Amino acid sequence: MKILEERIREEGLILSDTVLKVDSFLNHQVDTELALQIGQEFKMIFGHLPVTKVLTVEASGIQFAMAAGIALKVPFIYAKKKKAITQSEDVYSAPVHSFTRQEHYRISISQKYLGPGDKVLIVDDFLATGAALVGLADIVEESGAELLGVGCVIEKSFQEGRSLLEKRGIPVHALARIASMAPGEIHFIDNTADIEEMIKESAGC
Amino acid sequence: MKILEERIREEGLILSDTVLKVDSFLNHQVDTELALQIGQEFKMIFGHLPVTKVLTVEASGIQFAMAAGIALKVPFIYAKKKKAITQSEDVYSAPVHSFTRQEHYRISISQKYLGPGDKVLIVDDFLATGAALVGLADIVEESGAELLGVGCVIEKSFQEGRSLLEKRGIPVHALARIASMAPGEIHFIDNTADIEEMIKESAGC
Repeated sequence: MKILEERIREEGLILSDTVLKVDSFLNHQVDTELALQIGQEFKMIFGHLPVTKVLTVEASGIQFAMAAGIALKVPFIYAKKKKAITQSEDVYSAPVHSFTRQEHYRISISQKYLGPGDKVLIVDDFLATGAALVGLADIVEESGAELLGVGCVIEKSFQEGRSLLEKRGIPVHALARIASMAPGEIHFIDNTADIEEMIKESAGC
Repeated sequence: MKILEERIREEGLILSDTVLKVDSFLNHQVDTELALQIGQEFKMIFGHLPVTKVLTVEASGIQFAMAAGIALKVPFIYAKKKKAITQSEDVYSAPVHSFTRQEHYRISISQKYLGPGDKVLIVDDFLATGAALVGLADIVEESGAELLGVGCVIEKSFQEGRSLLEKRGIPVHALARIASMAPGEIHFIDNTADIEEMIKESAGC
């Protein structure tokens, strides 16, 4: 997504070869117009699939799950993060280890809102180590719903998240794929061809 | 907002005379269509004011701040919650005491995204004790921005949040105002007249 890559080049703060801050327009202050365009892009990629619900995790996935839900005209669910080990009976939950923050937590969703018959698109802001996304995929599996794909806004392709998901047979698409970065420079993987392929498929070509 | 009151009657779970769960359509699973209508309602109420930014607090305010941002065509910012006492120098922050969860935390936003010249609308899902909203109002004040109003989706009018904000001269509007509730029954304050007055003002009548 060219417009997204441009914004990352212009406004992203690259603090190290693994840490990129995009909080001026994506995940602290949010450009609502861009968020809606991101939702439309997810629709172009996944719109040919019979998605019934979008799933994300609080907090920074919410704006993009909402944008995807708006574009696909379906509700979204955000999993809650809890430090507590206690596991309630009426939730699906999964443990997550955050490498960035070096902390363990559980993500959970109410069993009332996901089950067999649901077809799920998982959406999040970043795909990096994949920890939270694998947790969300576990929750979908536990619920008996079908996982149709994972859509992320930004992928750090040099980390293992994508391969963890693809190993499980989950289709993964990211709107901006970073090949490598370092303070002052950033290189994207050109995924225009992949996306165009998906869009053609989506259009029934 | 009649459609909202109806959904609360149909789907809200009243667990006690103070606890209302609306997580099937507002703050866990989110009806994106209704969220957009809520954004439009905020526009009808606050659209005559020169809002430059919408401000909320993670996580459950995000979908409504985004809806308001979409309707008003402005960006939104979500304050981060941290248990940590440590206060960084480059943020505006305020302490919050959650009565529901009996916990203290700080909310903060980057100083880069709010300052003199900004005109702010604060949006959140619930107005009850007002703790988080007063914290957000403190942050706006500290930043030198102007606070134009507070818009909440649901107000528990029997708690003190509104009076804490109005005492400071802040205009407060809630889309569904609960006068009282108990398991099996809920009573709303009819605020149609107030809202219509605001809409007329907004339309320049």
